[in-house]
Amino acid sequence: MKRILRMAMVGGGQESFMAQFHRQAAQLTGRIQLASGAFGSTRHRSFEGGEALELPRDRVYGAYRDLLRKEATLADDQKPDFVVVSAPNNLHYPVAMAAFDAGFHVFCEKPLTTTLDEVLNLERKLNDKQLLLGLALPYTGYPMVRQARALIQEGRLGNIRRVAVEDPQGWLATRLETAGNRQAGWRADPRRVGPSGCMADVGSHGAYLAELLTGLSITEVSADVRACVAGRQVDDDGAVLFRLANGALGVLWASQISIGETGNLKIRVYGDKGGLQWELDRPDLLTLYGASGNAETLRTSMPPTPQQAMPPAGNCTGLCESLAYVYNQFADGVLAFDGKRELAPAYPSLAEGIRGVAFVDAVLRNTHPESTEKWTKLAV
Amino acid sequence: MKRILRMAMVGGGQESFMAQFHRQAAQLTGRIQLASGAFGSTRHRSFEGGEALELPRDRVYGAYRDLLRKEATLADDQKPDFVVVSAPNNLHYPVAMAAFDAGFHVFCEKPLTTTLDEVLNLERKLNDKQLLLGLALPYTGYPMVRQARALIQEGRLGNIRRVAVEDPQGWLATRLETAGNRQAGWRADPRRVGPSGCMADVGSHGAYLAELLTGLSITEVSADVRACVAGRQVDDDGAVLFRLANGALGVLWASQISIGETGNLKIRVYGDKGGLQWELDRPDLLTLYGASGNAETLRTSMPPTPQQAMPPAGNCTGLCESLAYVYNQFADGVLAFDGKRELAPAYPSLAEGIRGVAFVDAVLRNTHPESTEKWTKLAV
Amino acid sequence: MKRILRMAMVGGGQESFMAQFHRQAAQLTGRIQLASGAFGSTRHRSFEGGEALELPRDRVYGAYRDLLRKEATLADDQKPDFVVVSAPNNLHYPVAMAAFDAGFHVFCEKPLTTTLDEVLNLERKLNDKQLLLGLALPYTGYPMVRQARALIQEGRLGNIRRVAVEDPQGWLATRLETAGNRQAGWRADPRRVGPSGCMADVGSHGAYLAELLTGLSITEVSADVRACVAGRQVDDDGAVLFRLANGALGVLWASQISIGETGNLKIRVYGDKGGLQWELDRPDLLTLYGASGNAETLRTSMPPTPQQAMPPAGNCTGLCESLAYVYNQFADGVLAFDGKRELAPAYPSLAEGIRGVAFVDAVLRNTHPESTEKWTKLAV
Amino acid sequence: MKRILRMAMVGGGQESFMAQFHRQAAQLTGRIQLASGAFGSTRHRSFEGGEALELPRDRVYGAYRDLLRKEATLADDQKPDFVVVSAPNNLHYPVAMAAFDAGFHVFCEKPLTTTLDEVLNLERKLNDKQLLLGLALPYTGYPMVRQARALIQEGRLGNIRRVAVEDPQGWLATRLETAGNRQAGWRADPRRVGPSGCMADVGSHGAYLAELLTGLSITEVSADVRACVAGRQVDDDGAVLFRLANGALGVLWASQISIGETGNLKIRVYGDKGGLQWELDRPDLLTLYGASGNAETLRTSMPPTPQQAMPPAGNCTGLCESLAYVYNQFADGVLAFDGKRELAPAYPSLAEGIRGVAFVDAVLRNTHPESTEKWTKLAV
Repeated sequence: MKRILRMAMVGGGQESFMAQFHRQAAQLTGRIQLASGAFGSTRHRSFEGGEALELPRDRVYGAYRDLLRKEATLADDQKPDFVVVSAPNNLHYPVAMAAFDAGFHVFCEKPLTTTLDEVLNLERKLNDKQLLLGLALPYTGYPMVRQARALIQEGRLGNIRRVAVEDPQGWLATRLETAGNRQAGWRADPRRVGPSGCMADVGSHGAYLAELLTGLSITEVSADVRACVAGRQVDDDGAVLFRLANGALGVLWASQISIGETGNLKIRVYGDKGGLQWELDRPDLLTLYGASGNAETLRTSMPPTPQQAMPPAGNCTGLCESLAYVYNQFADGVLAFDGKRELAPAYPSLAEGIRGVAFVDAVLRNTHPESTEKWTKLAV
Repeated sequence: MKRILRMAMVGGGQESFMAQFHRQAAQLTGRIQLASGAFGSTRHRSFEGGEALELPRDRVYGAYRDLLRKEATLADDQKPDFVVVSAPNNLHYPVAMAAFDAGFHVFCEKPLTTTLDEVLNLERKLNDKQLLLGLALPYTGYPMVRQARALIQEGRLGNIRRVAVEDPQGWLATRLETAGNRQAGWRADPRRVGPSGCMADVGSHGAYLAELLTGLSITEVSADVRACVAGRQVDDDGAVLFRLANGALGVLWASQISIGETGNLKIRVYGDKGGLQWELDRPDLLTLYGASGNAETLRTSMPPTPQQAMPPAGNCTGLCESLAYVYNQFADGVLAFDGKRELAPAYPSLAEGIRGVAFVDAVLRNTHPESTEKWTKLAV
Repeated sequence: MKRILRMAMVGGGQESFMAQFHRQAAQLTGRIQLASGAFGSTRHRSFEGGEALELPRDRVYGAYRDLLRKEATLADDQKPDFVVVSAPNNLHYPVAMAAFDAGFHVFCEKPLTTTLDEVLNLERKLNDKQLLLGLALPYTGYPMVRQARALIQEGRLGNIRRVAVEDPQGWLATRLETAGNRQAGWRADPRRVGPSGCMADVGSHGAYLAELLTGLSITEVSADVRACVAGRQVDDDGAVLFRLANGALGVLWASQISIGETGNLKIRVYGDKGGLQWELDRPDLLTLYGASGNAETLRTSMPPTPQQAMPPAGNCTGLCESLAYVYNQFADGVLAFDGKRELAPAYPSLAEGIRGVAFVDAVLRNTHPESTEKWTKLAV
Repeated sequence: MKRILRMAMVGGGQESFMAQFHRQAAQLTGRIQLASGAFGSTRHRSFEGGEALELPRDRVYGAYRDLLRKEATLADDQKPDFVVVSAPNNLHYPVAMAAFDAGFHVFCEKPLTTTLDEVLNLERKLNDKQLLLGLALPYTGYPMVRQARALIQEGRLGNIRRVAVEDPQGWLATRLETAGNRQAGWRADPRRVGPSGCMADVGSHGAYLAELLTGLSITEVSADVRACVAGRQVDDDGAVLFRLANGALGVLWASQISIGETGNLKIRVYGDKGGLQWELDRPDLLTLYGASGNAETLRTSMPPTPQQAMPPAGNCTGLCESLAYVYNQFADGVLAFDGKRELAPAYPSLAEGIRGVAFVDAVLRNTHPESTEKWTKLAV
């Protein structure tokens, strides 16, 4: 009979936004079951969340440390196979550290941590514990993102010269965080979101996509980021000039105050032989440019894995499908676990987490009021 | 603890295309579990399918009649709550009839049957047995389709004058059915697909959407349908002029031979006060037209139901989400079942099934070689 | 020194809409000068129009018959080289006939005439007089329309199976003709516009494009056209099923009451080897489909003729440029005139005029209240 | 009778690209005639050019100084009303200076000069001579650009926070300048194009549009520009972070090496009340965003001036129409000239010319190899 993996969830109570997509993506795999959880920021909220999710009361905990301690002692046929961290950013690090200490594999929302020190500590811990870490970067789950990466790796674009990435969103164009909006509340609170708002939440996706597609690291940045909404304490919009390892030029623009925009992550990459464009608005298309000036549009038509069918062409791939793809990859990893952490897993993991934190760290150093340097190198 | 519904599946072996979306959509609801099945057209294929799905061998059957007979006798905590029919068209009717006779609710792929006589028999059976019938018409699961319907009902467009629907697909542009393609095999075989190919498979979605949005019935049709590919025995392309109950004009074009097209169901409705457009390529947008010549584009931003979160704007709603919406509605119906069939259920059901069959029936009568009439009325 | 052609204009006073584009297109060629005119429907309006255009008063006439009589007697260095007819539809025929009788070449707005009898008379006249006739069908002036035609002629699409054309407009969604709108006034008045409104004005462009691209004649039609606005006396919306000479299927939808639509002529053609799409919204793109499901988008990049530069890619080709292309072709014809009418001129001419009138004639016969026939053949 | 303005042209021989659009735009106004010219870079090429344009031989000159000297002495009914400068960038300054000295008004291609010193000299000359200067910035000729500006001035977007402009082109992705392409030849030659390639040619349009729409000056820049093609001596791609006078953030990306891109100038502006987007690919649309997340698309429907009709909606405005709009404005200025230069003319003029040169100057200073400053202020 089918091996169903059990997951424990930290965070993701009723006020949570992303957690519901984690649960749906897990459901969609057909082989992951929510077994237990510490939901929400208070004991009360956690039990409320567990009840709404119809979990048995003895598998719901008021605090994540209780969950980790107790669940680690369960019998093999009850014990969670991994812990999902879908709590505000400041909790990613302590929960992941504690979960590793308790012997659990971890699947974590991004950003992996809010500071460079934390992410390097986490690296040491992971090397020590030899467990698995998955990171919820869903874009690799879109077939056309993978195809774009493959085409670039094959040399279809030649030597990469220019990358342009953008993701304008507008939901924080007003000061929602003081108007009772919980999502905005923690995302604009430096104690919970960390030192960066928009760059960590939105811009890091773009930076990840630029590195994923080109296979090149971002080496240095020159940025202009700001809190545009009066009184806000973290950046809500910014643009970054960047350079890739081969010297190629990059520009990235991310925003939470582009009023009326609902988010359309878009990336364009140009080499000396060709160019390409992918955007979230039409995730199943990939446009290729060649020297002729004509464009070729590839359209998704094949299922990507044995575990998961992609919808027939004409029906677009949604976030659930793309996140489920990453969950499926992670589930494969958990089932194949042989006591050692994977150094180059198929799913986004530690390396991608470090890159994301280092990118935001460099942007913040570059735009620090006391900084005068034009270009700031990424620390790792 | 959460009430998990069990479903038995008829059809949907490894060669099946739509069945995998049924299973994914059911998984995505988080409250429906595949419990048993008779998969595929032979005993061997059925067991192969069951094995791939990791079902216990005693819940897999070589024939649907065995499944219905045996599973009807199971204990309450094992017995399926409903039967999903995801087999070639010719089996929808006999399987649904037998499942009702065995006392099961039925969730059926469309078209409900292949002939008008069958669908009217099914109506009598359903009235007799007082069970539930759901029909897999997923478009109602798109938030913007529901919003379009609501806006028209509120009178935003005024009196409807003109509807235009299209769905060009191209996958049957060559004679795949004789090249070993199983999907094409049954879809081009009149014994399995029924008397119509493209109109029943593709066109009926457009007709459903026209009636769903306007709230008006199609009363008569004048059509031109044809097998464009030499040697094919059922229609693979066609256009239909139609009239709605209020006298409004309609035109529908559906195709399986529009080479290179991957399917983009698109509907435009115009009244005397305004117009609107929705298309599957951008399912989360709804464009409204007014007398000014300016257009307003609405974008999905709210979750549609307590059970199911829609993805954040910018991430498009996929087929899984939309079909899961219908499964959720049906699951609600099953849980609330009081011994009587619902006359106006939230989910597509008997009425929609009859309309679809009657539409195709009228198109076929109108285009029969011996027919000379310009307009043909729908029989029901 | 450059040979500047002189044109006399009939119609096109200040209330006229299309005439201004005729004048701009002629100006854009850089070799056609407006020399004289009989503008507007009254003597007063004509002189008002001439004054606004800063023409010398002795080259402005109160009636077109005066213009033709008087200007025919002018010295060779004053006499118009051709007459442009840009008056309401009912005048196309009498003005063109009279202009031929007076010895002038004619460049006429479409439709060439309002009835089949008239257009056949005009054919006889032209054969008798051996002069030149140009027809203002601007679409051939778009580089990508010509490229589409060339690709189909080369066999890139294989044998044509299906054509779909549409042009939804909305400006007549209310009864403007009784609200003082002059444009609507004559376009909704059967005495001036002829027996058809929308089909003659809008639908005939689509039919022309279908024949132009495929190189196939429309042989028969089955239609549903109607005046949707209460009280209107000519059709303002309609859809037509049609068949091409090789048996291919066609569907055409044209509308003046699709409220909010500003007009987007769009054509799709599918053969057994490939398909293509062109639309007026993006006139410089041509999309090609192949069996792979991928699409190729061609983009205009070359100037089409020695006389006329097309804008750099990225700047779209406008109506002025496309109409100027036809004017340039006609001017070439006038300069090369050797006393015999051209039987297959580069510009749209008699043959295209006859096809357009025959198409509308067949649609009107098919939808006549007393007609019961499903399919009506085009008379010529 | 109509007053036809005579123009003399400097540059714009047969190898020229933009000059043909100048001539077409002038023709399209219907009131500007090419009277004389010094075309091309050699005596031979100039006479070749004049012959191709069918000008009388005595109005063609081998060098621009001959033209200015001789044509200044012509009788009033022969003398040019203004001089158009459509030669490589390095000639804009000397030709304009000499033309002012000869007493002519000037209509000049952009950039106005290649250095800041030159443009300030030109300002002094213009103040001294009190003549008219028009600059060929065509974007103000698009109705929707003017509407965008008007809406922002009315406060529809509130306080501006963020601007993003881009214009990816790809025609210089290979080293065309050494492959015999004349256009590329001078555009990649620092002696003729000036110190900047892409920023002066492409980026300056975006900077102009940002200032035109917002009504705010760009105050400082931080840039990354480069020659991506090996061996090229001027920049062919670059991105610029900029700040507007009110502190708003801006990002601009311009490229000539985005292989396969054919140019789509696109601008997005966001304030605290709303946002908007305009792009050259669909110049007749203007999209407005509000806090609701819904978008409103305005569509051109009205002619913008008495002199010039815009095409009916559905036909896009081309470069000829937009440039003709500026020519018409300039012609109005010439006709109304009262001996004093206009300080705030309707058409782009000295002020816009200075801004463009100052923007490029600041970008070059910021990215100079010896510069370490992050932000560089515009000099004027």
